Amino acid sequence: MTVNAQPMMATPQTMHFAAALQLQSGSQVRDYTLAYETYGTLNADRSNAVLVCHALNASHHVAGIYEGQDKSEGWWDNMIGPGKPVDTDHFFVIGVNNLGSCFGSTGPMHTNPDTGLVYGADFPVVTVEDWVNTQALLLDRLGISQLAAVLGGSLGGMQALSWTLQYPDRVRHAVVVASAPNLTAENIAFNEVARRAIVTDPDFHGGHFYQHGVVPQRGLRIARMVGHITYLSDDVMNEKFGRRLRAPTLSAARDSLPPEGARPPQGGLAAGDATRDYLYTTQDVEFQIESYLRYQGDKFSEYFDANTYLLITRALDYFDPARTYGGDLSAAFARTAAKFLLVSFTTDWRFSPSRSREMVQALLNNQRDVSYAEIDAPHGHDAFLLDDARYMGVMRSYFARIHDELAAGVAA
Amino acid sequence: MTVNAQPMMATPQTMHFAAALQLQSGSQVRDYTLAYETYGTLNADRSNAVLVCHALNASHHVAGIYEGQDKSEGWWDNMIGPGKPVDTDHFFVIGVNNLGSCFGSTGPMHTNPDTGLVYGADFPVVTVEDWVNTQALLLDRLGISQLAAVLGGSLGGMQALSWTLQYPDRVRHAVVVASAPNLTAENIAFNEVARRAIVTDPDFHGGHFYQHGVVPQRGLRIARMVGHITYLSDDVMNEKFGRRLRAPTLSAARDSLPPEGARPPQGGLAAGDATRDYLYTTQDVEFQIESYLRYQGDKFSEYFDANTYLLITRALDYFDPARTYGGDLSAAFARTAAKFLLVSFTTDWRFSPSRSREMVQALLNNQRDVSYAEIDAPHGHDAFLLDDARYMGVMRSYFARIHDELAAGVAA
Repeated sequence: MTVNAQPMMATPQTMHFAAALQLQSGSQVRDYTLAYETYGTLNADRSNAVLVCHALNASHHVAGIYEGQDKSEGWWDNMIGPGKPVDTDHFFVIGVNNLGSCFGSTGPMHTNPDTGLVYGADFPVVTVEDWVNTQALLLDRLGISQLAAVLGGSLGGMQALSWTLQYPDRVRHAVVVASAPNLTAENIAFNEVARRAIVTDPDFHGGHFYQHGVVPQRGLRIARMVGHITYLSDDVMNEKFGRRLRAPTLSAARDSLPPEGARPPQGGLAAGDATRDYLYTTQDVEFQIESYLRYQGDKFSEYFDANTYLLITRALDYFDPARTYGGDLSAAFARTAAKFLLVSFTTDWRFSPSRSREMVQALLNNQRDVSYAEIDAPHGHDAFLLDDARYMGVMRSYFARIHDELAAGVAA
Repeated sequence: MTVNAQPMMATPQTMHFAAALQLQSGSQVRDYTLAYETYGTLNADRSNAVLVCHALNASHHVAGIYEGQDKSEGWWDNMIGPGKPVDTDHFFVIGVNNLGSCFGSTGPMHTNPDTGLVYGADFPVVTVEDWVNTQALLLDRLGISQLAAVLGGSLGGMQALSWTLQYPDRVRHAVVVASAPNLTAENIAFNEVARRAIVTDPDFHGGHFYQHGVVPQRGLRIARMVGHITYLSDDVMNEKFGRRLRAPTLSAARDSLPPEGARPPQGGLAAGDATRDYLYTTQDVEFQIESYLRYQGDKFSEYFDANTYLLITRALDYFDPARTYGGDLSAAFARTAAKFLLVSFTTDWRFSPSRSREMVQALLNNQRDVSYAEIDAPHGHDAFLLDDARYMGVMRSYFARIHDELAAGVAA
């Protein structure tokens, strides 16, 4: 239970794949590179590998920090590391950036070897199944034939689930957090709003904005704002922001002055006063929640690739392993062989607990070994990335069980 | 209970107000026109008037049809008319288009008499309280000193509520449907996404797009798509659309063909087959829900004014009668004198039943006469506009009670 005081160092690596990749859509990627990181040590019988799959805007940088960059913690650094729930003193943990993403693996901003031009919108549609296939090829090259566990939250959970269906013999445990067996109509609807905002931004140029030296930042901002709302619970938004007004700076107040003839704002604008008068403005920030969302949108639009956003939301939409079984999830899960831990969060309305329970039921229908934890956490979908004692406890004990199995030689 | 077979005819009217209107923001509107309609007959003692307040995209055309336009039913025609729950054989019903809207009353697309230019984004911010003030002035001109009832759903419910606070002596009954005493942070967040989509559309031109001969349709589409998602329940979306694919027409299928080299779509594209293969596209319509949302967005962007959208969502954000009472709704409601009916719908996550219960409790704390119905309807926020036997029954019996009171002379 001791957490190492010394931060774990992370080193990004890349692996090039020269063989063409056949995609689910029928398209191909002629050759490609995957960015990845590993933490901990692969044991002698290569049985302690844990693959971590990422969601929409994350990457292969799962844990640790980069040399000389104190604030560069990986996106799941609270979960993974020496002495942490997924203990890198016991496990060899692998993070991989998905094909089509924008953090080092081949994606829309790279050159299409067939044309010599940047892919842009011509990058083929990739699916959860395609990602799992590339991850399997990476494991082949790392000499790992079977994973101790595959682990992911949200879209990452879908990949973990898909591993148990595509490569049932290569996964001993699947840990599926805050996920779902497919998207609901409402989920797809939110994705579609985000995509339309991006695609209809005049700076999108049909997905070939790179050549124009612009980025569809307006669309990306809107996409991120919509996304953010769905990551948080109503309750946590009310607690964090409520109806509180943004404390205006002097200059913001000056920019936001009501039209001439209006009553001037009263009561210490410069001091930033949440009980100040309304500014009566439709375009300036009035409430804290607006300021927060704009900030999140601005930040996101500066680093995330618009074509990647389209691809990854589409991978979410398309994932539906029960589809070829007429919607029968139990029938789809018949081919699984792994043991499962599923975790959901009570206030997650994006991937609600009922979606996890569907999966639990379908696994039980197949007499699979499945553990399920429904965590009463206030933070909505975001909870899967946050510290919650019960959540962390569940994860820690499940991975301790996996470690015990390895130690007892059950794995072999 | 008999519904008239003959459709009720509606006639839009306008009334001009030459005196300047002082707004809550401190601004003024120098002179203005309100569009309105009335149905039924004002009785001799002018005691049977019912004012109907509208929400975001509705208007004064509440009920009936226009001469020669069979399909022109008012937006609440199922609720209001001869023999309907709000029975125009008994009541004199008034619908009024709010100031700043875009259906006949003075708004952003009209000329500012002070400048001779179209208002555009210079139209002053209007609040629920301002609207109630203009409605009161309209009633003055119609010779109505007291309303039998004020009635509204959603934002219209906020106006009904505000009537009981601003003009407690002029309202005998307030019927507040699917409403809230203020917006939550999440509500404001969705409004802000919609506003940002509009304001950052290059065709918005800072709100002065009229002079440029363009309309920020991209932004309006996104705004409407976001709005629509929040009007529906997750359940009803799954039932209406689920994950069903859009049945493609031949030309749509041709436009959506996967990139060269991809496996061609199989299985009767032309016939439109919900079990067809995915098209694997990020920009074309794949799912029915996408098609529905795009259609709603397109339609809306062709008739709704962008500046009006900003104004009306802001009026929603700003409404908060408890604000000047330190958030104490009971204290705010102490000045009410009306009797109340509140109605909410179980699957309405935009204005959830808990928000109505807050109001009920605050009214009970003031020993007010309050009835409350929580209708178990699947349709989300939209339920307030739809036919539901229990909802219609509650409304019908409440208005019958009001009519009985009038007949018994209680009103006087």
